[in-house]
Amino acid sequence: MSKPTPEPPTPVTFDDVRHAAERIRAHAHRTPVMTSRTVDEQLGGHALFKCECFQRIGAFKFRGACNAVAQLDRAHSPGIITWSSGNHAQAIALAAALHHVPATIVMPANAPAVKLAATRGYLAGAPAGSEIVIYDPATQVREEVGHQIAEERGLTIIPPYDHPHVIAGQGTAALELIEDHGPLDVLFVCVGGGGLLSGSAIATKALLPDCAVIGVEPELADDATRSFRTGTLQSVHNPPTIADGARTPSLGHYTFPLVLRHADDMMTVSDEELLAAMRLVWERMKVLIEPTGALALAGALRVAREAPDRLRDRRIGVIFSGGNADFAAILPLLGS
Amino acid sequence: MSKPTPEPPTPVTFDDVRHAAERIRAHAHRTPVMTSRTVDEQLGGHALFKCECFQRIGAFKFRGACNAVAQLDRAHSPGIITWSSGNHAQAIALAAALHHVPATIVMPANAPAVKLAATRGYLAGAPAGSEIVIYDPATQVREEVGHQIAEERGLTIIPPYDHPHVIAGQGTAALELIEDHGPLDVLFVCVGGGGLLSGSAIATKALLPDCAVIGVEPELADDATRSFRTGTLQSVHNPPTIADGARTPSLGHYTFPLVLRHADDMMTVSDEELLAAMRLVWERMKVLIEPTGALALAGALRVAREAPDRLRDRRIGVIFSGGNADFAAILPLLGS
Repeated sequence: MSKPTPEPPTPVTFDDVRHAAERIRAHAHRTPVMTSRTVDEQLGGHALFKCECFQRIGAFKFRGACNAVAQLDRAHSPGIITWSSGNHAQAIALAAALHHVPATIVMPANAPAVKLAATRGYLAGAPAGSEIVIYDPATQVREEVGHQIAEERGLTIIPPYDHPHVIAGQGTAALELIEDHGPLDVLFVCVGGGGLLSGSAIATKALLPDCAVIGVEPELADDATRSFRTGTLQSVHNPPTIADGARTPSLGHYTFPLVLRHADDMMTVSDEELLAAMRLVWERMKVLIEPTGALALAGALRVAREAPDRLRDRRIGVIFSGGNADFAAILPLLGS
Repeated sequence: MSKPTPEPPTPVTFDDVRHAAERIRAHAHRTPVMTSRTVDEQLGGHALFKCECFQRIGAFKFRGACNAVAQLDRAHSPGIITWSSGNHAQAIALAAALHHVPATIVMPANAPAVKLAATRGYLAGAPAGSEIVIYDPATQVREEVGHQIAEERGLTIIPPYDHPHVIAGQGTAALELIEDHGPLDVLFVCVGGGGLLSGSAIATKALLPDCAVIGVEPELADDATRSFRTGTLQSVHNPPTIADGARTPSLGHYTFPLVLRHADDMMTVSDEELLAAMRLVWERMKVLIEPTGALALAGALRVAREAPDRLRDRRIGVIFSGGNADFAAILPLLGS
């Protein structure tokens, strides 16, 4: 539970989150907050679920992408570039279309066809010059491909999580939850690269200093928990967790110190707990979240089992990060 | 498109629906209405989805059950009785618990264990004397079992759909949709026993006389469409449609004339169309509806394909009737 001394002043502040909220207001959904008597009984407290699965492109990623694309310095850059095989690719594609900014998106040759098609669909609305660049993940590293193209063409890089504008944008999810549904005692947030957790922790600690902010990641991809405990950046390599949004190798240059400074704790859950939480939400709340989207609730359920006093009669914020479930991979796991 | 001359004055009026809305307000959710750019593109108009999957017990059935249980004449009846293997059983059990009324629920021995458990769970909150009575569907008829017990014990029968209080309660779904989201040009509603359709049509025609109300049922259970076309009551026997909420043998004594009088048209969709509509809602809207819950949208999508002018630029109401999907039966059909 102890954590290292905080780092010096950070590059993302609560004002940045508030400005991000103004910047994305016209484009992003103010997503609904749902409740469930059934889940409350299991938690022993009252949970408020921020449903980012209902966000545009089906995940919170649109918030950060929209905030970043909106701030492109068009006088000095002809467009943006990013790399992603998942929700961030779609988020950048849609944000580029809405802001009339050319976008280049680097995707692996083995990306699911449905995600390629969705990204291509959003990108069709973006200006001429927008394109998807396919790379071979067996022989190329996506960051290197992206940086090389960015340099050649003078494009501005918006990486999936490790960028101040992206972090500030993701923080608007917690900002809205607190603005709309009042004080919380504890907030559970999933962790991949740490963009959502750091942004949400900044907003939460500014508004509710006494609210505990807890990051949750898969046991199979526990790099952020180990980084948090040791104070030095740890990594994982292609972890086989079903939570594909949490397979990122490590926290980032920006997100690691922000998580250290603003989050109160980190924890892990097994893929079995993750699937059970996802199934609970599907069956009882009728909300279709993806495995990564169930991390935060899985964490809360584990705390309720292992340390029930921490949640009893508390107001518990839970972020459902997204709903872009890969049916072919997931449905067989739920069918029994 | 022609329909027979309406019957004489009906036993359910718009005032009954408005009174039902007041009666259930403290217990039922005012369910959210969602929209989808993706679905709008396929429809050619603007759809408003009334999400009864988020209603208590996961389906609109709670509305009618709550309205009926609230009106029990306690001076003359010691409790209520009903029969159902599905959503109505859970709806009555919860309504009985909330109104402190003893309830007897007749369920088949082959009812899914999960539905038995859910009904038993809600019934645990109801007064002493409440019970689930199991019958053998191979040798007994549920109505006969129910009527016999009702007579022996003086219980008041609240059948799944063919009851004025039930019909008035179901009509509050359309009432809320119109109150909250203004005029509609057309409303699509699923049909099993016709309780939701007749109640919704009464409310819609009272508020929006020019709004077309269209009932949708599975091709494999097309009794209501044939009844509507011929003006005489038609039936089906255990139709093998995946829409288990629409396997009812026929419209009822009350619902048939109400549907004839207030609905504008009836149509059918194939189980394939139903599954495609359900998948679209799961994948793009992240809302978990059951197969029966996708009937209305499947009907709208068929109209959009076959007669697009009827929906172009129109405001289209669609009721998602429920979300109690039987995963074991459905997931294998979506896994490919």
